[in-house]
Amino acid sequence: MRSSLIRSATTSLTRGNFAKISSSDLSFFERTVGSSYVKTKDIDNYTCDWTKQMKGSSKCVLIPSSTEETSTILKYCAEKRIAVVVQAGNTGLVGGATPLFDEIILSTSRINNNFHLEESSGVLTLDAGIILADADYLLAEKGFMMPLDLGAKGSCQIGGCIAAGAGGIRLLRYGSLHSHLLGCTLVDGKGTIIKLGGSLRKDNTSLHTAHLTIGSEGQLGVITSVTMGVVPRPISILCAMLAVSSYSHCLRLLSLARSKLGEILSSFELIDGETMKCVERHLPIKNIFNEPHDFYLLIETHGSNGDHDGEKLNEFVEEALGAELAEDGVAAHSENERTHMWRLREESPIAAAKDGYIYKFDVSLPLEHFYRLTEETRKKLGTRARVYCYGHLGDGNSHLNVTTDGEDEELKKELSPFVYNWVVSHGGSISAEHGIGQLKRDYRSLGKSEEEISLIRSLKGVFDPHRILCPYKMIPSQE
Amino acid sequence: MRSSLIRSATTSLTRGNFAKISSSDLSFFERTVGSSYVKTKDIDNYTCDWTKQMKGSSKCVLIPSSTEETSTILKYCAEKRIAVVVQAGNTGLVGGATPLFDEIILSTSRINNNFHLEESSGVLTLDAGIILADADYLLAEKGFMMPLDLGAKGSCQIGGCIAAGAGGIRLLRYGSLHSHLLGCTLVDGKGTIIKLGGSLRKDNTSLHTAHLTIGSEGQLGVITSVTMGVVPRPISILCAMLAVSSYSHCLRLLSLARSKLGEILSSFELIDGETMKCVERHLPIKNIFNEPHDFYLLIETHGSNGDHDGEKLNEFVEEALGAELAEDGVAAHSENERTHMWRLREESPIAAAKDGYIYKFDVSLPLEHFYRLTEETRKKLGTRARVYCYGHLGDGNSHLNVTTDGEDEELKKELSPFVYNWVVSHGGSISAEHGIGQLKRDYRSLGKSEEEISLIRSLKGVFDPHRILCPYKMIPSQE
Repeated sequence: MRSSLIRSATTSLTRGNFAKISSSDLSFFERTVGSSYVKTKDIDNYTCDWTKQMKGSSKCVLIPSSTEETSTILKYCAEKRIAVVVQAGNTGLVGGATPLFDEIILSTSRINNNFHLEESSGVLTLDAGIILADADYLLAEKGFMMPLDLGAKGSCQIGGCIAAGAGGIRLLRYGSLHSHLLGCTLVDGKGTIIKLGGSLRKDNTSLHTAHLTIGSEGQLGVITSVTMGVVPRPISILCAMLAVSSYSHCLRLLSLARSKLGEILSSFELIDGETMKCVERHLPIKNIFNEPHDFYLLIETHGSNGDHDGEKLNEFVEEALGAELAEDGVAAHSENERTHMWRLREESPIAAAKDGYIYKFDVSLPLEHFYRLTEETRKKLGTRARVYCYGHLGDGNSHLNVTTDGEDEELKKELSPFVYNWVVSHGGSISAEHGIGQLKRDYRSLGKSEEEISLIRSLKGVFDPHRILCPYKMIPSQE
Repeated sequence: MRSSLIRSATTSLTRGNFAKISSSDLSFFERTVGSSYVKTKDIDNYTCDWTKQMKGSSKCVLIPSSTEETSTILKYCAEKRIAVVVQAGNTGLVGGATPLFDEIILSTSRINNNFHLEESSGVLTLDAGIILADADYLLAEKGFMMPLDLGAKGSCQIGGCIAAGAGGIRLLRYGSLHSHLLGCTLVDGKGTIIKLGGSLRKDNTSLHTAHLTIGSEGQLGVITSVTMGVVPRPISILCAMLAVSSYSHCLRLLSLARSKLGEILSSFELIDGETMKCVERHLPIKNIFNEPHDFYLLIETHGSNGDHDGEKLNEFVEEALGAELAEDGVAAHSENERTHMWRLREESPIAAAKDGYIYKFDVSLPLEHFYRLTEETRKKLGTRARVYCYGHLGDGNSHLNVTTDGEDEELKKELSPFVYNWVVSHGGSISAEHGIGQLKRDYRSLGKSEEEISLIRSLKGVFDPHRILCPYKMIPSQE
C-alpha cells in the first residue's frame, strides 16, 4: 500500500528523548579530541546551513581527526543517548547537516590526511574530509579525474558527497556514485568501525554494503574513508549551445546527441527562455544568442581525441540545424566561450535568487513530463509568481525555481504540496540529488510503500539501534 | 579484528532445524502455483548445478508465475520454517542455486512476461525470469544493448545476474551492475513484496536499498522484477590481439590502451602462453600468431563512429609495436577474424576442462599481483599439475585453472587454502564474479572482519528473520 498524497507540509516536531549535554560530557569530548576541537562558542557556521535558511542550535561541535576518535565519540554518545548530527562541508541544500534541537555536531573536516591513488587500476582511497576540488587537483597531476563535479566542489567533502548521493553535471557520462564507490569505512551509531567493501573493482564475497551509504544522509554512520574508482582525465573537452523552439525538439535533440556523440556526451543541460531572461536581467552576463528563444541546450563532450570529438560535435550541430530541430547553434571555439556558456547555466540559480523571494525544487521526472511540471506550475500560479526551469535534462533532473516579490505565506503553503504531489503522481522523485534532510522531511513518505518505510527503519536499526544519528530527518523513527 | 587465515577447507555441515515437507505442504503449493508447477519427480536438472559438480536433493521444485505467487509461497514457508533455495537460470559456478539437504527449490523461470523499455531515457523494466540474451535481442531492435554480457547469456536470467553480481567481458567499459540497477521488486524471506528503488536515474529520497540485492545470492529474498538503465548499442565494434613477452609489458599496454582508446575501450583480456598451448592441444582452433608467445592480449572497442574507432585502434597497435611493448599485433579485419580472436579467449575454459581433472578459481587481485599468483602456484605445484591463467586483466580478475591427470586428493586439500590465503594476503578477493555459494562457503569469512560478518548477518535478519532462504551458503547463521 502506498501512502496517500499529502495535503499539508506542516508537522510540528518535538524533541526526541535524548540526553542533555553535561559538563562531564564536554570533558570526555575534550579528552578525546583535544579541547581546541570541542567548540561551544561562535559556532554559527555549523548550526546554520549555507543557504542561511535553516538554523538550529547545538551545545557543541566536535572535530575529531580520525576514525578512531570518531568511534570513541559515537560509542559514548550511544551509551549516553546523546543525539548527533554529522556535518561534512556544510554545503547541503536540505538542511541534512544542520541540527534541529540540541544535537551535537560531529564535523569530519579534520579527517583529511590520507590520499592514495593506485595508478595502474585507477583506484583512489582517501579520507572522507578531503574536499572534492582538492582531490581532483591531486588527481590531475596523474592524468585522472574525480568522476563527479558539482557547484560546491570547492567546499564539499568526499564523505559528504557519498552521504548526500551527490549527482552533478557529468553524471550522464560517468554515472552515479554507485558506478564508482568500491568501499568505505563507516563508524556506525554504536561507534563500531566497519570496513564496507574493499578496493577491488570486482568482489563478490559478501553483501555489497558500501552502496547503502550512498545517499544515507548520516543515518547509518559517519563515513571516514572512501575507496572509489576514478576516471582518466579527458584530453578534449568541447562545448556547444543550441537555441530551440519547443520542448519536444529538446527531447529529439537529446536522442540525436546520444547517437551522434555517443560515448563522449557528458552534459546535456537545459535552460528555459524565462530563466535566460532572468539571468540577463540580474547578472552582467549576455545570452550568447542575439535573439531570445524558448529553450537553450548546453552540450559538453569529454573525450580522448580532440579531432574526433570536434568532428562528432560539428556533425551533431549541423544535423540539429539541418533538420530544423535547433533554431540556432554555436560551438565554443575557445576556453572563454566555453566558460561563458557554462556561466549561463551555472549562474541560473544565482539569477533566480536575485529575482525575489525564492522557492527551490530539485525533482526527477520521466522525460515526457520533465517540462510539463514547469508549464503546470506557471498555469497554477498565473501572475502570482515567476517560474524558472533549468537542469540536467539528460538525467531527467529539473531544478524548478519559483520567485515572488516578497514572502507569500499563502503560496508557501500551497506550492510544495502542489509540486511534490504532481511529481509523485507523474512517476517522479521529489529529490533527485539534494536529499531529504529537514527541508523535505514532511514529504519523505510521499509515494513510498509502508513496506519500504518499514524496511529502511529496520536497516537504520541495525546500524544505529539507539537512533542517535541525525534524528528528525530522512528515516522515520517510531514517532 | 580480521579472521585469521584458514588452514583447511573442511567443515562438516549439519542440516538446519527446518521443517520437513509434508503432503499438506505440497497441496498448498499446488493450490498456489498449479499442480503442473510443483515438480517432485525428474528434477535432476534443478538439484544439480550445470557444472555437474554439485548435487543436492529436494522434495519439490516450485515454479511460480508472478511476484504474488512467490509471496504466497514464501509467507507459507516462513510460517512453517521450510528452507528454500532460489534458482534462476541455474548457470552459477559456485552451487549457490543448488540445494544441500532438502531445501525446496523456487525457480523464477516463469516470471518472464513483462518487458518495458522507456526509449527516451533508456530505462528498462523487465521480469526477473527473462533470459539475458532474449532481453538483449529485444533491445537490439530499438538500438539499445544490455550493458552486461557473459558466457551464460543464453540461459542465465536477469534476476540471477543481479543476485550473482554478474561481471562479464565488458565491465571495463560499462561498469558493474551498480552502474545500471535503478530498482527491483523483492519478495523477502517473510513473503513481503517490497519495491526497492524506482525507475529514475536520480532519486535521493530513501536509502538506496536496491543495491543490496546485487551479489546477494538469494539471501535477502527473491528478485522478481528489475529496472535498469541500458546502453546505446555500439555502431562500431573492433578487435585486436597482441602477443607480448612479459607481464610487465601487459600492464604498460593496459595503460597505453586506457590513454589511446579512452572511452571506447571495452575489453582488455589476457590469455597466457600455457593456456594458448592448451587451447591448441585440445580444440580445433589455431592461435592467430604463427610463433608462440608468453602472453596474448585481446582488446575490443565499442564506439559510435567506425572511422574514429579504427583510427584510435590502429594508432594504439602501432604504438604498442613501435615501443616494442608488443612482439606482434593484429587487428581483426572481418567479423570472422573477430570471432576467431574471441573463441581463443572464450574457449580457454573449455580447453582447460579437457586437459584433465580441473580446479577452477575466480579471483580479483591488485594488478601488481595479478600474474604473480599464477607464477607462485606453478612454483608450488611443480610437475604435479598444469597451471593456466586467463581473465579480465582490465578488471584485475584472473581465472586461474589447475589441472591434473586424475583426481589428486592431496592436491585438492592443499590447493584452495593455498590460493585463497595467497589472494587475501595480497589484497585480493577469493571471488571476483562467481560468488560464494556452497563451493567457497568454507572460505567466506577469510579476510573479513568480525564487524562485517556481524553486520551482514544482521542485515539478513531484517529481510529473512527465520533464515529460511538459501541456508548453508554466503551468510553465516548463528551456528
